[in-house]
Amino acid sequence: MTENLSPQPATSPTTASAAAAARAAAAGSGTAAAGTRLDPWFGSYADRAHGMRASEIRALFAVANRPEVVSLAGGMPYLKGLPLDAIATSVAELVATRGATALQYGSGQGDESLREQIIEVMRLEGVSAHPDDVVVTTGSQQALDLVTRIFVNPGDVVVAEAPSYVGALGVFRSYQAEVVHSPIDEHGIVPEILEETLTRLEAAGKTVKLLYLIPNFHNPGGVSISLERRPRIVEIAQRHGVLVLEDNPYGLLAFDGETLPALQSYHPDGVVYLGSFSKTFAPGYRVGWAVAPHAVREKLVLASEAAILCPSNASQMAISTYLATCDWQGQVKQFRELYRERRDAMVGALAEHLPSASWTVPAGGFYTWVRLPAGLDAKAMLPRAVTARVAYVPGTAFYADGSGADHMRLSFCYPTPDQIREGVRRLAGVVSSELDLATIFGTGDADGSPASWSRRSSPDDVQAPGPDLA
Amino acid sequence: MTENLSPQPATSPTTASAAAAARAAAAGSGTAAAGTRLDPWFGSYADRAHGMRASEIRALFAVANRPEVVSLAGGMPYLKGLPLDAIATSVAELVATRGATALQYGSGQGDESLREQIIEVMRLEGVSAHPDDVVVTTGSQQALDLVTRIFVNPGDVVVAEAPSYVGALGVFRSYQAEVVHSPIDEHGIVPEILEETLTRLEAAGKTVKLLYLIPNFHNPGGVSISLERRPRIVEIAQRHGVLVLEDNPYGLLAFDGETLPALQSYHPDGVVYLGSFSKTFAPGYRVGWAVAPHAVREKLVLASEAAILCPSNASQMAISTYLATCDWQGQVKQFRELYRERRDAMVGALAEHLPSASWTVPAGGFYTWVRLPAGLDAKAMLPRAVTARVAYVPGTAFYADGSGADHMRLSFCYPTPDQIREGVRRLAGVVSSELDLATIFGTGDADGSPASWSRRSSPDDVQAPGPDLA
Repeated sequence: MTENLSPQPATSPTTASAAAAARAAAAGSGTAAAGTRLDPWFGSYADRAHGMRASEIRALFAVANRPEVVSLAGGMPYLKGLPLDAIATSVAELVATRGATALQYGSGQGDESLREQIIEVMRLEGVSAHPDDVVVTTGSQQALDLVTRIFVNPGDVVVAEAPSYVGALGVFRSYQAEVVHSPIDEHGIVPEILEETLTRLEAAGKTVKLLYLIPNFHNPGGVSISLERRPRIVEIAQRHGVLVLEDNPYGLLAFDGETLPALQSYHPDGVVYLGSFSKTFAPGYRVGWAVAPHAVREKLVLASEAAILCPSNASQMAISTYLATCDWQGQVKQFRELYRERRDAMVGALAEHLPSASWTVPAGGFYTWVRLPAGLDAKAMLPRAVTARVAYVPGTAFYADGSGADHMRLSFCYPTPDQIREGVRRLAGVVSSELDLATIFGTGDADGSPASWSRRSSPDDVQAPGPDLA
Repeated sequence: MTENLSPQPATSPTTASAAAAARAAAAGSGTAAAGTRLDPWFGSYADRAHGMRASEIRALFAVANRPEVVSLAGGMPYLKGLPLDAIATSVAELVATRGATALQYGSGQGDESLREQIIEVMRLEGVSAHPDDVVVTTGSQQALDLVTRIFVNPGDVVVAEAPSYVGALGVFRSYQAEVVHSPIDEHGIVPEILEETLTRLEAAGKTVKLLYLIPNFHNPGGVSISLERRPRIVEIAQRHGVLVLEDNPYGLLAFDGETLPALQSYHPDGVVYLGSFSKTFAPGYRVGWAVAPHAVREKLVLASEAAILCPSNASQMAISTYLATCDWQGQVKQFRELYRERRDAMVGALAEHLPSASWTVPAGGFYTWVRLPAGLDAKAMLPRAVTARVAYVPGTAFYADGSGADHMRLSFCYPTPDQIREGVRRLAGVVSSELDLATIFGTGDADGSPASWSRRSSPDDVQAPGPDLA
């Protein structure tokens, strides 16, 4: 429990108690407001920047990163199992023998050898593409940004799952898109309701540009789109003329090793596929990619060159060397076993300590999506949870419209099984106190539906997901 | 002359002659047009993407990167002098001992140790800032993108030097800014004309958001803003309420070692300063930074998190280690001497072979800005130059309005002195043939002013600078 779960040192002194700090953090986003009042450039910002401010939960995460807090909030992969000595040796050889290339500017589209290897990685999920279809990006987050940049005008609609990845919602918002959610169940996004959603939006004269989906081990939902639904979803999007944006960082992390075909494989001209090495290898090199229809790919490269000139040769060649010289598939298998053990710890602890909640049981990936007992508000409860030395991400972060307060995302990727069990135990204590309060003061509705549905939070949480929430 | 000047292998077969390939490349951007016709998503792009297409000169650069061509076009630093073995050893130690941090997600603002070191680097140019004022970015290109993103609405004006950096013009254009140029002379941007420009724009009801300046060893102009003009420029911007965007990758590369104070040092609240390790160390890690007033810095971090989540820990820690363990200032001194020798080769060869042209004599940096003899058009001449196995960037690339055809940028950073002399000799041959044609067919005006002024090129060149033109 002494492990620091943050890759960055906390800036506040670690001697103060988490409880005091959580109270202070919860008390106000006063700093940001004061900064704004004193900002001499306040009147100069672009329209798209007006909503940009640190979310309330960011302040709490500074506290949640303290060693005494069990964080079930972050999406950081567990890297201790990586063969660091072998990686060190190969990176040293890379710099010593090919340093003049590794340290130089590279191609805007990305290193050709790495793009060839990416094709092989994607073949495991049924994607057949050519290296020329691939654009390497600074993490798949940059690919998300670039796709949105080239497609979305202010006011255009992006349809996303309900809930959806907080980092994608932040991108869509930064381009002033209107995000419309379409619900998921245990088999992923529901085709019939998606069809209705698109039809309704068309009837309302909306321009729907993208259908953003995380098909495998959804963040935060924990579910996957079933094999049966995949072609149907792609067909619905095609019929409505909507480009599918398939975000797939977790596809190879199925606990049973079974990999479903990518949406892209059903209709390569109708899908932009996003991949990443952040979860199957390591996020620190910031290497992801997009696969896109030819003309779209061409624009993505031009947009990327405007944004960053080119991705890092040093990072790309380090990853290329890792793929070529290490047993990367063996490493992925090891990750799958590690994360399965942690998933088991998570759902076991939930069943033991939080039977009044309900949750998804993910078959892969990093997250479970927990519905709180009626009457509880995950966002309102967070400061008290942090005070009790456990952190999570309230469901509101995963909705563009402020709903989701009755849910929380729990991550099992980074903490050990023991930490997970201890974290859930602490969480159960907080929930129990909250339920006692709810019973006394009657914050639940008479019919048992959660009060939080009627008092939606503001959608501030999606402003700035931050790397903590990856 | 057998050295491949490109970091990427040319895709076309190297057995074909440069001449034939240059003709083919010059013949048409047919591929892009065909791609567009077949693009099923043609009707879906955002307005900002409509202008995104590969510039005509991009096709030529694929040819210019062949080994038989002397490229005076690229902005790649010369890296052979770097202590690659020492860097390899320190990177290996970094991964072996701190790999779990280096390979993990990091802070959106950037590594704190590196930000402290950046403060020390900037102190050499009179910048006194706090590590909290710094945002680390994926090269300073990303900082350019982020500053534009948070300040510029479509139709807002950015005032830039005439000429200006092609990569910045591409960013401004991608945010649908209107770029207005204000001229430079041998002492940098001219204060009196800048004052007039801003006054005229205000009178016309324009919203001027940024004054974009490269104060030291201008790309492509080769000149620096004089010590006397610096406070005047900052004062003019302040009086007109315009934020200065100071782009300073070359400041430490003065051939006499004399460093002028940054514009930021005159008025920290009125300037966003951009720095980079690409020219003083190496570009392959893609690490640059911005220093900004507090509230602006806060928005830059949020915008960067939306764009890429966080910069690469591996890259940042590699640079931090290099700064801490190698004699980086000694290395910069070595670069200065190397580039001075190449500058001397360049201006010597120009005086010998191209006396009919005029050029700036840079006191640092990578570039000289050459004015062709009257009647010649650098853009029209480029295919013939590549056929004669020499490449440059036509002046049109550095203007948002298609002017500049009477100029070219010659880089002396990457080729050896012998290559530079040979390149200029070839270029002189091309110019001489062009002048013969101009004499015979009378493309020059009677009064000797260059015909190219009246036939402006389209501003396509700025669409996609690409890493070749960094």
